[in-house]
Amino acid sequence: MEKFEVTILGCGSALPTRRHNGSAQIVNVREKYFLVDCAEGTQVFLRENRVHLNRMNHVFISHLHGDHCFGLMGLISTQNLLGRIAPLHIYGSEALESLFRPHINYFCPNLTFDVTFHPVDTHAHAVVYEDNSLTVYSIPLKHRIRCCGYLFREKPLKPHMRQGVIQQYDIPTWQINNIKAGEDFTLPNGEVVPNHLLTTPANPPRSYAYCSDTLYNPDIVPMLTDVNLLYHEATYADDNAALATKYFHSTARQAATIARDANVGKLLIGHFSQRYDDENILLQEAQTVFPNTMLARERLTIPV
Amino acid sequence: MEKFEVTILGCGSALPTRRHNGSAQIVNVREKYFLVDCAEGTQVFLRENRVHLNRMNHVFISHLHGDHCFGLMGLISTQNLLGRIAPLHIYGSEALESLFRPHINYFCPNLTFDVTFHPVDTHAHAVVYEDNSLTVYSIPLKHRIRCCGYLFREKPLKPHMRQGVIQQYDIPTWQINNIKAGEDFTLPNGEVVPNHLLTTPANPPRSYAYCSDTLYNPDIVPMLTDVNLLYHEATYADDNAALATKYFHSTARQAATIARDANVGKLLIGHFSQRYDDENILLQEAQTVFPNTMLARERLTIPV
Repeated sequence: MEKFEVTILGCGSALPTRRHNGSAQIVNVREKYFLVDCAEGTQVFLRENRVHLNRMNHVFISHLHGDHCFGLMGLISTQNLLGRIAPLHIYGSEALESLFRPHINYFCPNLTFDVTFHPVDTHAHAVVYEDNSLTVYSIPLKHRIRCCGYLFREKPLKPHMRQGVIQQYDIPTWQINNIKAGEDFTLPNGEVVPNHLLTTPANPPRSYAYCSDTLYNPDIVPMLTDVNLLYHEATYADDNAALATKYFHSTARQAATIARDANVGKLLIGHFSQRYDDENILLQEAQTVFPNTMLARERLTIPV
Repeated sequence: MEKFEVTILGCGSALPTRRHNGSAQIVNVREKYFLVDCAEGTQVFLRENRVHLNRMNHVFISHLHGDHCFGLMGLISTQNLLGRIAPLHIYGSEALESLFRPHINYFCPNLTFDVTFHPVDTHAHAVVYEDNSLTVYSIPLKHRIRCCGYLFREKPLKPHMRQGVIQQYDIPTWQINNIKAGEDFTLPNGEVVPNHLLTTPANPPRSYAYCSDTLYNPDIVPMLTDVNLLYHEATYADDNAALATKYFHSTARQAATIARDANVGKLLIGHFSQRYDDENILLQEAQTVFPNTMLARERLTIPV
């Protein structure tokens, strides 16, 4: 199966600690790397995970709190020192460019590549990126400032060729894409082999949703329905549910409620408050609602 | 003796690696903490060194390259989250405020403390900070952009009271400062005890100089004469002397030449290029010129 996996670079919350970095992760879709959030130190976390800094062409920023974007300048500056040429595309709320363009101009006066900022309407559930195999949608979240999550959804995949049919019918290579697109195959003697004898159904397209930071917000459930993997913030346990409401964050139980109601495949919780020395309390509370939950941790790579 | 020591938080050069952080260090003068440079991640390096983030009231920035200042916003933002009240003073070239004030205003809209930027004339050797026990001077350096080092010099210290004299002559506490300032002491019977019988000479004031980043620049030798400890950048070994010139950096041998010519007590070299897996080559080349040289390393604390 084509690669589709997530690597956690950081899953702490506002105060970076020796245990957790700020928010950052790599979404790898068929060896195309997407960076989601970029806390201070992300360039070093990438090195620690042996990801070359110039592997990413697209960076998605959820919101403009420092623990989600203070690593941007260091990343861009080092990419420049490493001689990057490929354009870098940064997606996020509108203020991103007005804040960071002056720093790029000052700190990287001889930038060897273009940085393009793509304003994202954080209130909309809309396409923000698209390529041949993937669509990325914004997910409106409820935080103290404009904030959105991102949904990575594979495009419908092509069916598989049945084993042995290419040899059996001597199908030329140039015909294979047509057959995968649904055509039958006509033998030299005029006999038609129907498509269903040549192919097996495509794998269902996979999807990954990143939701951080947000108040418990059931409005997003329809956007998350049936996603294979959901990363949802779980800053607090039940003991601090009032703080979650006050600061527009979620408890682990609320994250699990979203996961259950959206019927997701697996829930990964993160954005842990530094007050929990043992995050198993968060895991346990989530699992009472949605058993297939796991804790995010730095350097975890998880298939979608 | 009153504390005067330096703790290295980071001593790498432009490309942060898993071995070295970017430039940052703490100068502790009598338990007053001064931060010198503030590379990305400095707030975490401070935690790793168990320095409370709100211990520092003064930050000195040598120049506006990212590996010396990209940690500023994270530091300020976290200080704010930690409820800092004390004003923060930041010293550095003029552009510092125009670059960082918009970020402070945006990312910390409810800042609980004042941040004051103090423009430093990087071309001058002048006083940039002063308190009862310390004067900090700028040291003009030659780099690709405006850049200065900082010289921390203790003010002249008071003489010590000779052991036993307070008891012997029954000297009241309120008289001790006068005697340390040079006065004699008159006994109740009118007899005068001359000052030299009451005191021993003060310790000579100590000094620490931080010089990073710079081309080999003998013009600074007179400013560094007799300093107890000199941190001087040594980005390259002799093998890359041409690169040192090209990028306005120094070799280890050049750093040692400055140290020798300024007759400093000890030389600490740092700002190592990531190309040296074994920095002993830098140490050896420096020691051929100035034997009392040591390599900086993260978490090293060294008395001045």
